[in-house]
Amino acid sequence: MLSNHFQNGVETVRHAWSRIPNSEESQFVDDAVGLVRKSDGSSVESLDYEVIENFAYREEQARRGKLYVSYLLVVKWLFALLIGIGTGLAAVFINLSVENFAGWKFSLTFSIIQKSYIAGFLLYALINLVLVFSSVYIVTQFAPAAAGSGIPEIKGYLNGVDIHGILLLRTLIGKIFGSIGSVGGGLALGKEGPLVHTGACIASLLGQGGSTKYHINSRWFQVFRSDRDRRDLVTCGCAAGVAAAFRAPVGGVLFALEEVTSWWRSQLMWRVFFTSAIVAVVVRTAMGWCKNGNCGHFGSGGFIIWDISDGQEDYSFAELLPMAIIGVIGGLLGALFNQLTLYISSWRRNHLHKKGSRIIEACLVSLLTSIISFCLPLLRECSPCPESDPTSGIECPRPPGMYGNYVNFFCSSDKEYNDLATIFFNTQDDAIRNLFSAKTIHEYSSQSLLTFLVMFYTLAVLTFGTAVPAGQFVPGIMIGSTYGRLVGMFVVKYYKKLNIEEGTYALLGAASFLGGSMRMTVSLCVIMVEITNNLKLLPLIMLVLLISKAVGDAFNEGLYEEQARLRGIPLLESRPKYEMRNMTAREACGSGRVISLPRVVKVSDVVSILRSNKHNGFPVIDHTRSGESLVIGLVLRSHLLVILQSKVDFQHSPLPSDPRGGDRSIRHDSHEFAKPVSSKGICIDDIHLSPDDLEMYIDLAPFLNPSPYIVPEDMSLTKVYNLFRQLGLRHLFVVPRPSRVLGLITRKDLMIEDTENVNTLELQSTSVRNRHHNKRPTTRNSDVERPLLNGLLIGSE
Amino acid sequence: MLSNHFQNGVETVRHAWSRIPNSEESQFVDDAVGLVRKSDGSSVESLDYEVIENFAYREEQARRGKLYVSYLLVVKWLFALLIGIGTGLAAVFINLSVENFAGWKFSLTFSIIQKSYIAGFLLYALINLVLVFSSVYIVTQFAPAAAGSGIPEIKGYLNGVDIHGILLLRTLIGKIFGSIGSVGGGLALGKEGPLVHTGACIASLLGQGGSTKYHINSRWFQVFRSDRDRRDLVTCGCAAGVAAAFRAPVGGVLFALEEVTSWWRSQLMWRVFFTSAIVAVVVRTAMGWCKNGNCGHFGSGGFIIWDISDGQEDYSFAELLPMAIIGVIGGLLGALFNQLTLYISSWRRNHLHKKGSRIIEACLVSLLTSIISFCLPLLRECSPCPESDPTSGIECPRPPGMYGNYVNFFCSSDKEYNDLATIFFNTQDDAIRNLFSAKTIHEYSSQSLLTFLVMFYTLAVLTFGTAVPAGQFVPGIMIGSTYGRLVGMFVVKYYKKLNIEEGTYALLGAASFLGGSMRMTVSLCVIMVEITNNLKLLPLIMLVLLISKAVGDAFNEGLYEEQARLRGIPLLESRPKYEMRNMTAREACGSGRVISLPRVVKVSDVVSILRSNKHNGFPVIDHTRSGESLVIGLVLRSHLLVILQSKVDFQHSPLPSDPRGGDRSIRHDSHEFAKPVSSKGICIDDIHLSPDDLEMYIDLAPFLNPSPYIVPEDMSLTKVYNLFRQLGLRHLFVVPRPSRVLGLITRKDLMIEDTENVNTLELQSTSVRNRHHNKRPTTRNSDVERPLLNGLLIGSE
Repeated sequence: MLSNHFQNGVETVRHAWSRIPNSEESQFVDDAVGLVRKSDGSSVESLDYEVIENFAYREEQARRGKLYVSYLLVVKWLFALLIGIGTGLAAVFINLSVENFAGWKFSLTFSIIQKSYIAGFLLYALINLVLVFSSVYIVTQFAPAAAGSGIPEIKGYLNGVDIHGILLLRTLIGKIFGSIGSVGGGLALGKEGPLVHTGACIASLLGQGGSTKYHINSRWFQVFRSDRDRRDLVTCGCAAGVAAAFRAPVGGVLFALEEVTSWWRSQLMWRVFFTSAIVAVVVRTAMGWCKNGNCGHFGSGGFIIWDISDGQEDYSFAELLPMAIIGVIGGLLGALFNQLTLYISSWRRNHLHKKGSRIIEACLVSLLTSIISFCLPLLRECSPCPESDPTSGIECPRPPGMYGNYVNFFCSSDKEYNDLATIFFNTQDDAIRNLFSAKTIHEYSSQSLLTFLVMFYTLAVLTFGTAVPAGQFVPGIMIGSTYGRLVGMFVVKYYKKLNIEEGTYALLGAASFLGGSMRMTVSLCVIMVEITNNLKLLPLIMLVLLISKAVGDAFNEGLYEEQARLRGIPLLESRPKYEMRNMTAREACGSGRVISLPRVVKVSDVVSILRSNKHNGFPVIDHTRSGESLVIGLVLRSHLLVILQSKVDFQHSPLPSDPRGGDRSIRHDSHEFAKPVSSKGICIDDIHLSPDDLEMYIDLAPFLNPSPYIVPEDMSLTKVYNLFRQLGLRHLFVVPRPSRVLGLITRKDLMIEDTENVNTLELQSTSVRNRHHNKRPTTRNSDVERPLLNGLLIGSE
Repeated sequence: MLSNHFQNGVETVRHAWSRIPNSEESQFVDDAVGLVRKSDGSSVESLDYEVIENFAYREEQARRGKLYVSYLLVVKWLFALLIGIGTGLAAVFINLSVENFAGWKFSLTFSIIQKSYIAGFLLYALINLVLVFSSVYIVTQFAPAAAGSGIPEIKGYLNGVDIHGILLLRTLIGKIFGSIGSVGGGLALGKEGPLVHTGACIASLLGQGGSTKYHINSRWFQVFRSDRDRRDLVTCGCAAGVAAAFRAPVGGVLFALEEVTSWWRSQLMWRVFFTSAIVAVVVRTAMGWCKNGNCGHFGSGGFIIWDISDGQEDYSFAELLPMAIIGVIGGLLGALFNQLTLYISSWRRNHLHKKGSRIIEACLVSLLTSIISFCLPLLRECSPCPESDPTSGIECPRPPGMYGNYVNFFCSSDKEYNDLATIFFNTQDDAIRNLFSAKTIHEYSSQSLLTFLVMFYTLAVLTFGTAVPAGQFVPGIMIGSTYGRLVGMFVVKYYKKLNIEEGTYALLGAASFLGGSMRMTVSLCVIMVEITNNLKLLPLIMLVLLISKAVGDAFNEGLYEEQARLRGIPLLESRPKYEMRNMTAREACGSGRVISLPRVVKVSDVVSILRSNKHNGFPVIDHTRSGESLVIGLVLRSHLLVILQSKVDFQHSPLPSDPRGGDRSIRHDSHEFAKPVSSKGICIDDIHLSPDDLEMYIDLAPFLNPSPYIVPEDMSLTKVYNLFRQLGLRHLFVVPRPSRVLGLITRKDLMIEDTENVNTLELQSTSVRNRHHNKRPTTRNSDVERPLLNGLLIGSE
C-alpha cells in the first residue's frame, strides 16, 4: 500500500525526529500558531484531540464497520493489561534495586563504623556519590527529558501540549536507571514522581508499538494513531505509575483523574481502574514471592507501605485545633517550598546550561547530603532507651542489620539510641515508618526534630531541579511528618490524654505538607489512606488538606503548575480567566494572520506558504458557481507535508479532480497521516521537489477536515475558551455571523436508540425513534460511496 | 426594582408551578423541542448550562466586578458547608428513627413470642403494616416524586434534564418520612438511595433560598439562578447523600463523579470533597453523642457500618477462581434483577395508575414480607450452638435485647440458634453484619442461605417500584453477601485452609451483585472499602467488580439507566452512538422546523408563534443595510414570556430602539429571567394582553443570547454530539458553511496571564502577554457602555 520512496522518506524523517530534545541545534522559530516557545530552547506543540474527518478517515470507517470497533476494544483492554503489568514490573524492579542498594550501603556502613567512624563516613559518602553520579550521567548524556519528576510534562501532555522527547524509550530507560541511582544515593527525593512518568512512557511506547529509533516496533500494535487514543493510554500509564509507587490502586485512578487529565470520560475511568488493579496484583505477587528472602531487602514491609492501622483509634474535638495548626503550617511551608524551588529552578536555568556543570552540581548536592545526614547525628547526644514493652515488639536499640526505631549510632552505651540518626541516617522509607510509628511516645526530642526539619527542608529545596529523576512525594512526607510529630509532641504534653499517638500527627503533617505544596485533594487523601491503611483518620486528613490547600492557594499555585509555567508548558486551566468575559473571539485571534489556501493549489504556492510561516492549520476556501466564497475545511501543515513528500496526489490540471473517480481512495490510508508520537514530524526543509513538481497542482479536498468547529466572531472569549478546552481542540475557526439558521439541534435530536435493544423497544415512546428509524437506512447505505464532503464538493465545483 | 404587577404575576405563576407533578391535569403537549414526553404524564425539560450573554447579564457582570466574584465564592463555600450539615443531620435523623422503630419492633416481638408466636407475628406484621402504610400514604398523597430511589431522576437532572417536582420541599419531606416508614417497616429496600435524593433536595432548596410555595425563602441566598450553579449544588448534595448513607466520604465524592454527574470540573471536586468531609464530621459527632445511650438503638455500631477489619488477612492464588465465580454469579443475578425490575415496573406503570391501588400494593408487599420473614424461620430446625470461644466476644445464643449472631428463635433448647432467623428475622443492617462476620464459620447451613437468597431476591424484585422511597444498595448487599457466603462455605469445605473467612466472601458477593446491577466501578469499590474498613481486600473487590460488570454489560444496561429509560428520562450518554458517524447535523435536526423571529417583532406575532408550537428557543434574524440577512442570536421562550408578562419593554415604533438610550438598562435585571427551580415556569396561557398591547412591538436585541454555539450543516453528528454533550447545551444552531474565516484560535491565543501574578512575570516569555496587555485596557474600559452585542446592533440597524 505504501510506495517505496514514501517509505524511505518516512524512515529518514523518523531518524530526524529522534534527536535529543533540549539540544542546542534546535532550529525552530517558535512564535507561530500552535507552537509556543519553551524557554530552554526546545519547542512544545499542541496536540489535536479533534477527529479529522477527511476522505481517508471516512473511507476507513466505512470499510471497517462494527467488527473493527470490537477489535479496537479488545486491543484497548489488552493494552490496559500490558500497561499494568509493565508498570508493575518496572516498579518492582526499581524498588528492588533501590532497597537493595540502600540496604547494602547502610549495613556496610554500620559494620565499618564499629571500627572507625571516619572510614564509615568516607565509604558512605563514596557509595552515595557513585550512585548519584551514575544517575546524573545517564540523564544528562542519554535522556535529558528524564530529569525531574516528569509530572508537569505529563500534565502538559494530557492537557494537550506535546513536549518533545518526554515519551521516548530513552527517557523511559533514563528514568528507571536514573531514579535507582538518585534514590539509592540517598538524595532528598523520591521515586514516586518518576514512576508516574515511567508508567506514561510505557503506555506511550506500547501505543506506538515499540520504539522506532531502536527498531523494536511491531506493526500489530500500531492501531492507536490519533492523539486522542494516545492520551487515553498515557492516562492509564499515569494511574498505573501512582498505583505502583504507593501500592494505592484507587489513589492512582484518582490521581490520574484529578491531577493530570484535563479531559475525562467515564469509559476511560473503567479502563484506568482495571490497569490499576493489575498493577496492584503484579506488585502484590512479586512481594509475596520476595517474602521468602529471594529479593534481599525488598518485600519485607508488606503491601501497605507505612501501616499505622494500630495507631490512634479516636479523637476528641479539642484535638481539632492542633490539627488545624498542622494544616496552616503545611500550607505555609508548602507554598514556601513552591516559591523557593521556583526561584532556584529559574536561577539554575539561567546559570547552569552545560552538561558538565549539571553533573558537578548533582555530585556536590550528594556530598552535602552525605555530610549532613552522617555528621549531624554525631553531634547529637544519645538518649537512654525507654523501658521496653515486650508486647509492642519494638526493641531498643534495634538489633544490627534490622530496620526499625531506636538506632544506636555513636552512643557510648549499648542501652542508648540516637534519635536524630533514627530519622536521618536511614532510608527515607524507614525514616517515615519511624516517624509514623505508634507506641513510641517520647522517642524523639523536639530539638532533633527541629534540626532535621530545617536541614531536610533545605536539602529538599536544593535537590529539587538537579538533573536526576526526582519525585517530591517522599521528601514532602518526610518534612510534613517531622513537624506533624513535633505538634503531636506538644499535644501529648499539654492535653495529657493517653490515647494520642504522635504518629497520627506525623501522618496529618505529611498530608498537610503535600496538600500545601501539590494542592491535590481527593487523590492525595485516598493515597494517604491507602499507604497507611487507617480509614478512621479519613475525616481528619480531609480537614488538614482543606486547610493547607486553602492557605497555600493564598500565596501561589501548586508545585506542578508553577513548574509547568517555568518550563513554558502552556497549560489551559479548566476555568477561563475572568477578563475573558469582556473579550470577543475576534479580539483574541488578532488580526490579519489567517493564510487561506484555495481548494486546488499549486505545489510551489504550498511550499512557499509553508516556508513563510509556522502555522499548523490553514483554512481552505473554495468558490461556488455563483462566485461566492465558501470555507470548505481546514488542512493541517502535517498533512500538507505528507502530501508533498509522497507526490502521488500531484496533478497537472488546475481543476478539481472528480471525487467519485475511485482510485483516489487507494492512494493514502489514514495511517500515513497519523502524527508520530512525541516528535517533530516532517519539516518543510526535508522535502525535495523538482521544478516539474513545483509546477503541478494538488486538490486538497480529500485531505482536509471538512468541518472544524466554528465560533461567530463576537462570541465572548469565555465561551470560546470552554469550547476549546472541553473538546481539546487545536484550531478553532472564527467566522462571521451566519446569515440563516438551517436547523436547531436539541437533546431530542440526539436521542437515537441502538437498534440492538429490541427487547426494550416496547417501553419507549415511539415518536423520536421512528423518525430516525426511517432515516438511518438511507444514510447508512450511502456512506461508502458518498462521504459527507462530497455533497458539498459537487455543488461547489 | 420590580414593578408591582410583575411581582404579582410572578407570585401567581409560582403557585401554578407547585402543582403536584404526575397529576392528571397536566396539560402539556410534549412533542416539542426540548420537551420529551414522559410516559406517566409528567413532562421533562432540558436544562440549559450555557451562559445567556444578553444585555442584562453583561450589564450585571460589568456592574459587579471582581468583588462580587469573591462574594459568590464565599457563598458557594458556605452553601457547601450548609449542604453538608443539612444532609448529615437528615441522615442522622433517618437513621435514628429507623433504628429505633426497628429496634423497638423487634424487642417487643421477641418479648411477646416468649408467650405466643401467633400474637408475636400479628404484632410484628401490624407494626410493619402501619409503618409501610404511613410511608406509602405520605408519598402518594403528598410527594409522588419521592417514590423510588430518586437516583435515576437526579442522574437525569445532572445530565441536563429537569423532571418536574423532584427537587421540591415536599419531595424532601416525603423522602425523609417515607423512607423512615418503608425501611422501618422491614421492606426489602434500603435508605441509601433516598438519602442521595434527600441531599440533592437540600442542596437545591438551599440554592433557591428555601421553598417559594411555603414562603420560607430568603432573598439573601438567591444568588444561584442559573442551571449551571444549581447543578453544582445538586452535585454536592448527591455526594453528601452517599457520604451520609454509607459514612463513606470518599465514596460519596466518587459516586457523584462516576454515577450522577455528566459534567465535572476539578474546582467542583474540591467543593464536593469539602461537603463530604463536613457530612462525615456531623455524622461522627452525632454518633459520638449517641454512644452514651442518648439515642436509643442508634449509634451503637460505630462509624464503620460493617467493620470487617479483623477478617481475612491474606489470600492465595487458588482463591481467585471461586472469587471469579462470585463475580460471574453477581453479573448474572444483577442483570436478571435489572431485567425483572424493568418488566415489573413497566407492568405496574400500565396497570396500577390510581393512588389507591398503589397504597394497597405496598401494604400487600409489606404483609408478604412479614409473613415470609417470620414464618420461614419457624420451619427451620434449630442448630446447636458451637463451642464458644471466649476471646471472640461472640455469644451463642445472643442475649435477649442485644444484636448479634446466633438468634434463638423457635428453638427447643436454650443452647440452640436458628440460622435462618439470624439473617431473616432481623434488621437488614444487622443481617449484613452477621453475614459479613468473621470467626463464625459454619454458622449458616447452605440450605438456609439458599432459601434466604431465593426468597429475599423475590421480595426485592417485588418491592422495587412500590410507591415508597426505596434504595437498592442494602437489598443488593443482602443478596450478594448471601451467595457470597455460600461460595465461601464451599471454599472453606474444599480448600481446607484455615485462614479463609466466609465473611470475606460475603463482602465480595455483595460487591459483585452491586457491580452486576448498578455497574459502578471505582465509587462502588471505595464505598465497599469504606463501609467495611478493610483496605487489604481492595484488589479482590476490584477483580470481582470487573468481572461482574463485564458479565452484566453483556445482557443489559445498569439499573439506573434502565429505570431512567423506562421513566422517559432522556439521558445523553458520554459516548456518541456508532451510527452518528454517518449522519450530519442537518439530517439530525430534521427539516423545516425552525421558526425565526425578526429583531423587532409585533407582540401579537410573538403570542401566536408561542401558541402555535412548543419550541423553547427561536433564532432571531436581522437584516443589514445592504439587505443581507444575519442571525443575531437566540431568544428563549421563557424570556419571551417574561417580556410579555412584564410589558415594560413594549414600544410603539417598529424600529429598533437605540441601545445606547440608557433607560433600557434599568427595566430588567438578570434575576427576572432566571428560571424557577424544577417547575414549569410561566405558560403562554397565563398571560393576558389587551388588544392595545398586541399592536405594540418588542425589540428583542437586549434579551437574546447573541452568540449561541453553531455548527456547520455537514458536520458529522458525532462531533455535534460531543459539542452538545460536553458543554451541556440546550440549543445548537445548524448554519450554512461560512464564507470566510476571520481568524484562527489556537492554544496560544487563550493563554492570557493573570495581571495579579506580578512576582512570576519575569519568568515568562513576554510576547504573548504583551499583546494582551495592550489590548485589555481598551476592552475593559469600554465594557460598560459597549456590550459585545452593540457593535453589531448599530451596524445592522
